[in-house]
This record gives sequence, C-alpha cells and structure tokens, in this order.
Amino acid sequence: MKKIIVQKFGGSSVADAEKIKNVAKIAVKEKELGNDVLVVVSAMGKTTDGLVKLAREISPNPNPREMDMLLSTGEGVSIALLAMAIQETGHKARSLNAMQIGILTEAIHQNARITAIATERIKEAFANDEIVIVAGFQGITEDNEITTLGRGGSDTSAVALAGVLNAERCDIYTDVDGVYTADPRIVPNAAMIKEISYGEMLELARVGAKVLHPRSVETAKNVNMQVRVRSTFHPENEGSLVTSKQNLELMSHVRGIASDKKQVRVVFSCVPDTPGIAAKLFRRLCEENISVDMIIQSYARRQNKSNDITFTISEDDYKRSGDILWRVREEIGAIEVHINEDIAKVSIVGAGMVDTPGIAATMFEAIAGLGVNIKMIATSEIKISCLVSRNEADECVKALCKAFELEETGVL
Amino acid sequence: MKKIIVQKFGGSSVADAEKIKNVAKIAVKEKELGNDVLVVVSAMGKTTDGLVKLAREISPNPNPREMDMLLSTGEGVSIALLAMAIQETGHKARSLNAMQIGILTEAIHQNARITAIATERIKEAFANDEIVIVAGFQGITEDNEITTLGRGGSDTSAVALAGVLNAERCDIYTDVDGVYTADPRIVPNAAMIKEISYGEMLELARVGAKVLHPRSVETAKNVNMQVRVRSTFHPENEGSLVTSKQNLELMSHVRGIASDKKQVRVVFSCVPDTPGIAAKLFRRLCEENISVDMIIQSYARRQNKSNDITFTISEDDYKRSGDILWRVREEIGAIEVHINEDIAKVSIVGAGMVDTPGIAATMFEAIAGLGVNIKMIATSEIKISCLVSRNEADECVKALCKAFELEETGVL
Repeated sequence: MKKIIVQKFGGSSVADAEKIKNVAKIAVKEKELGNDVLVVVSAMGKTTDGLVKLAREISPNPNPREMDMLLSTGEGVSIALLAMAIQETGHKARSLNAMQIGILTEAIHQNARITAIATERIKEAFANDEIVIVAGFQGITEDNEITTLGRGGSDTSAVALAGVLNAERCDIYTDVDGVYTADPRIVPNAAMIKEISYGEMLELARVGAKVLHPRSVETAKNVNMQVRVRSTFHPENEGSLVTSKQNLELMSHVRGIASDKKQVRVVFSCVPDTPGIAAKLFRRLCEENISVDMIIQSYARRQNKSNDITFTISEDDYKRSGDILWRVREEIGAIEVHINEDIAKVSIVGAGMVDTPGIAATMFEAIAGLGVNIKMIATSEIKISCLVSRNEADECVKALCKAFELEETGVL
Repeated sequence: MKKIIVQKFGGSSVADAEKIKNVAKIAVKEKELGNDVLVVVSAMGKTTDGLVKLAREISPNPNPREMDMLLSTGEGVSIALLAMAIQETGHKARSLNAMQIGILTEAIHQNARITAIATERIKEAFANDEIVIVAGFQGITEDNEITTLGRGGSDTSAVALAGVLNAERCDIYTDVDGVYTADPRIVPNAAMIKEISYGEMLELARVGAKVLHPRSVETAKNVNMQVRVRSTFHPENEGSLVTSKQNLELMSHVRGIASDKKQVRVVFSCVPDTPGIAAKLFRRLCEENISVDMIIQSYARRQNKSNDITFTISEDDYKRSGDILWRVREEIGAIEVHINEDIAKVSIVGAGMVDTPGIAATMFEAIAGLGVNIKMIATSEIKISCLVSRNEADECVKALCKAFELEETGVL
C-alpha cells in the first residue's frame, strides 16, 4: 500500500504560469518518491479579491449563495492549470472540484464547515496512477448547492482530505519557511519553530500568526494529522511540524508572539444586568455569522443595575455587519454601542505558561516599558492577549520577543 | 400556466458590471410582463481568451478534459454576477451551473453535444418565482465530468433549454440588431431580415454569418423553437425571427451573403483511386475531431489511377491538428499534402435558388467582374459557395449584395 501525501498551495504559490510549473515540480517529486499525491490549491494570486470587487460593483451586499457560486470559480481555474502543468512533465494528473469528489458541508454559505468527504473518486484516480488536484475552499451541500469554507478554507480542505485518506502527512506550502516565534517582517531575527503542538499552534494561529488558519489546526488535531508548514520557494527545507507530541510543551514556556491588527472592539454599554442577556447577545451575533474573539464583561457597577459587555470582532465581519450591531443593541436593551477600530491584539502563546509564575507580569512589564497603555486583557490556559493601539502593536511584539528570549539562536 | 421565455446573452453583453446591470434590466422587464424567465449567459468579455492564453503558457497542447474544467469557470463568474444584479432590482434570482441542473452531454471534451437536460431544478426555481440564470457552453457527462460544447455552445445551450422547457420563444441577444443580408461591417447598407426560415438561417450561419452558430439553428429546427436575434443595447427593437414558416422561402431567391475568412484548404494529392479511401480519410479526421467543410474530389485523371481530394477545415482545427494531416496522408497512401491558408469562402443563401435559373451564373459573373479567380465551388440546395483569396472576399460580398439587390430598401 502506497503512502498518501497531501500538499496544499496557497494563492501566492500559483499566482502565474511559472509558479504553477514550480508547484507541479514539487508534486511530481513527491510522486516520484513512490507516494500517492493529492494537491489542494487555492485560487491564483489576487483572483478572489478581484471577484469580490466585481461583486461589490454590482451589489453593496451580494447574496451569500451567489458569492459562493462566484468565488468557487477561482479554484476551478488553478486546479485545471496545475493538472496541465503536471501532465506536461509526463505524469498523469486529474483535477476534481468539490462537487465531483463530494466534499459535503453544512448548508451555510460563505463559512461552511466540512461534514463528510467521499473518497471513491480520489481512490480511483490513485489506482490509475494519477496525481489528484483538488479545489480547496469549496464544498457542496446535500442539495448540490455550492458553499465556501470561509477564511483558511483551503488549509482546512487539505487537512480534512488528509484525514479521510489516512494520509502520511499534510504539507502546507506557503511563502514563508515555517512557523516563527514572531512575524519575521516585524522581528527580523525571530526564530523558526521546528516542532510545535496542535494546542500551541492553535493559539498562535488564533491570535494572529497567519501561517495556518486556526480551523485547519483544529481539524488536524481532530483527525490527528501531522502538518508540515514549509516554503513553496525552498521546498528542500523541512519547515515546521505541527504534531500531537505532548512532551514538546515542556521545552519552553512562551513559544511564540503574534499580533492581529484586523480586529475591532465593540462595547455594548449600559446593558440590563439580568440573566440571559449575554446569551441573547452572542446568539444573535452567531445567527448573523459574526465571530467574536475576546469577550469581557465587567461588574455591574452602576446603581441602575446595568453592565458593559465588551468584545472584539474581525474587521471583515464588522464591515459587512451593516446595522446589525445597532439592531442587536435595541433587542437586548443596551443604551449605547461604541466601536473602536484603532486596536490591535498582541498575544504570547506557550503550553508551559500556566505552571510558570511571572509570565503575565513579564508581559505587562515589557509593554509598560514602552509607555503603551493596555486597553483590554484576556487569557486562556496557554495564551495571554492584550489589546493596544494599532500603531503600537509592532513595538510590543519586538519587546515581547526580547523579553521572552525568542530571537534567533539557531532553530528552537 | 405562465409562459417561459429563454434569453441568451453573449460575452460582450456581460463584459463589465454596468453591462451586467443592463442585462438584468432586460431579464426583469420580461419577468414583469408575467413570464417565467431563464437567462443563459456566456463568460464575460474576453475571459475565455484569457484562460486559453494561460493554458498555452503552461502547455502547448493542453489536455482537453482539463481545458473543459478550466473554461467552464468563465460562465460560473457571469451567472453569479447576473444573479446578484437581478437581486439588486428586488427580484428573486438563482444561478445554476450545468452540474446543478443536469445538462448531460456526450463524453467528448471541448466539442460535446447535449443529450438530455433535467428540468426539475429549473421548475422548482420558477415555482419559487425566481429568474433562473444558467451557465451556457457547459455540460456534464454521466460520470460527472465537465464538458464544453465548443463554438456556438451558449446559443445551443439556450435553444436546447428553451426546447425542453417548451418555452414560448428563445431570444438571442447580441451586439448587432439582427440578421442582415450581408455583414454590415463589409456592406454598410445591407438590409435587416425580419423573418428567416431555419433552413436559410442554417446555411447563412454555416457559411459564416456569425450572428448565430449553425448548431444552435439546427437545434432550434429539431425542437421547432422560435428564435429571435436581437440587440442587447437596443432591446426595444424586435430583431430577426428565425422560424419554421415555409412560405417565406418563396419571397425572394437569394436571402443573404456571407463570407468566412477562417478556413484553410487542404489538398491530399495523388491518393490511390480505390474504394474506401475517402471514407477512411474522413473517418480519421472525425476521430481527431476535425470538422470538414467543403469537399471536392476530381476525376481520376492520371494513368497511375490516383485522385486529388480537396477539402476545407477551420483555421482553429488546423492549428491544433499538429502532424495529424501528415499521419493520415501516410495511412491512406497519398503522395502529397498541400495547405493553403490564403482562402476565404463567399456564399449566397436562399431557399428559392434551386428553382431559379441563372442564380449561379449571376454569382460567378459578379465575382469575375472584379477580376477575382474562383478557386473552388460547392453547392447545396439553398447555397452556393466559392473559395477566393482572403483579401478579395470583402469585395466579392459587396459585389454580390449589389448583384442580388440585397441592400437596404427598408427591412426585407
């Protein structure tokens, strides 16, 4: 029985004909090692942005079903071109879209989750010695409606396919060399992480390390799939391995720093302090498909028994939310809504943190040392996040990298 | 029971957001007359050309299956955008691709014929008061492989859909006002034809009048569907009606002139004069999916009992034919193959021609009057075609328009 390797290439890796030929070489090399190879690709370069722009020229608020019909065409182009490029090398290849494979999702447009994947068609192609090229990011419902998986969709497609195929490994090729302790564009001497656990990667991804989307890490954890993050342009490097190995978590306390400048802070002010209000608020946001990140509720501080509920949402969700926040305000009887777009989230992540005293203090001291005001704090077992002003975020990342000794001293 | 109107818009009618909004208006207007409306669209503007160019950058001879995967994405974009544009007007709309509807074709890539169309999904949408937007040009095989219909595919999709839906009428919107007696770019005072029979339209289309593809006219004739050719930019005009009415054929002898400058003449010289050779030749070309137009075989004129077989094929088929013609030459034992790309076909079409003496003579005289040499002649019951040099074709069309009195004197 041959081993199955799943590879995933993002939009920048297939941005033009030359880059597609490079991807073909990487896939063929893995095939020539004697493996069955399945390649998941995103849409070419800025294709998706171009399609979104076209849609907005036609409608300020395009229908989500039609957006999915529209956006799913992007991957249709790249899979066919990659199949041709592989065929040019003399190998057999076959592109398949979500409908042809049967990548089933929930009946939710623009942000669907995968529920099941049929493998017959893929196995047929493998049996016929073909490299299989699959459109990432897309799925279908039981009624044959096209859905898309939302942000991080192609990574998630790749990991999920690797899972159902019992693949040996899922290689996520990107334009960086692997997972770093901090964004190398902000901290040039950030160190590359050779191995990282699902939990740590998940938190790093959640707090803004863009190399892997949290959904794909969650999926990898669920199906226990080893994921290697590596460079399309230096495929000879091994990159970073995301794995279930738990002993890694003892190796160091803080594993990485990340920042996210695409968040908006929302404050619902003077909310009635009665049971069920928060539940109602976040249920309504969920119905509107708005994902909430940090949530803070202070004490009921006023005599009129009212609360402030503060949370952050992504800029994208905010932009498309229209008057939803104001409608929700009325529904739950809050007096005011305050929006603050000048925020950034800076986070430290590491599995050993909970057990190590002084980590939080070190973080707050490093930020205070810059004269930066912390606007909000949230913690999990393996993460501490602080909100600061957007233009202060990079400074904070640099200072934290130094404070926690995460700069390059060889690979960690 | 509501009447069903099928509309088809080509690439130039949906080339940008503004044009798509204009198409939406035309569709909505028909809907507001109380009809059920199904709109077939092609890919936007030069999308298909762009995709073909990308494919050629990757492979000089791209795999036909993958070309179909690639090209079918073009219509995926335009259907979604048109659905959004209609929704903006406050009407309901739903885009559907060939896989979702079930537009079944033969398992031939790049030039498949439609074998069956499922109507359930469309009828559901009509029952839900939706305007249905369908991707033209594409189909699927029974194995869920994507096919494309080749040239004229979207027209054919529209007419075939109109047929299975028992539509009242199929409106083909184009960038011209209707069917003219000759190409108005060559003969500015050519007359518009108000009504034309399937047979005449078929011959006009076959000999190069580009307003409708012959396949779509054949399909219209098969399913007895009235087709109206009209302008996207002047939808208030009625355009030309293609219909089964036979009495029209008596109204005038020569109905139209057309020229085709995209043909190549092939001569297989010194072919053995034995039974079955022509059959073998054209069977092989058919296997290679090369369509042959005019065919002429002269007398076996030499003592060595050999023949010349001459025929024309489209420039596109010639370009992708590679060394096929030379391989076929060997297989049938011909001595030489001569290719002539400097040819154009000029044709006159009219149902009354057979019964009218002197039509052919008038044609040859008009061409001779220009000092133009006729390289080949072929006739059918309602058509006479002559091959001339490519740069002489326009002159011939003008002279023939004059000779047969087909210039504008009010609408014919």
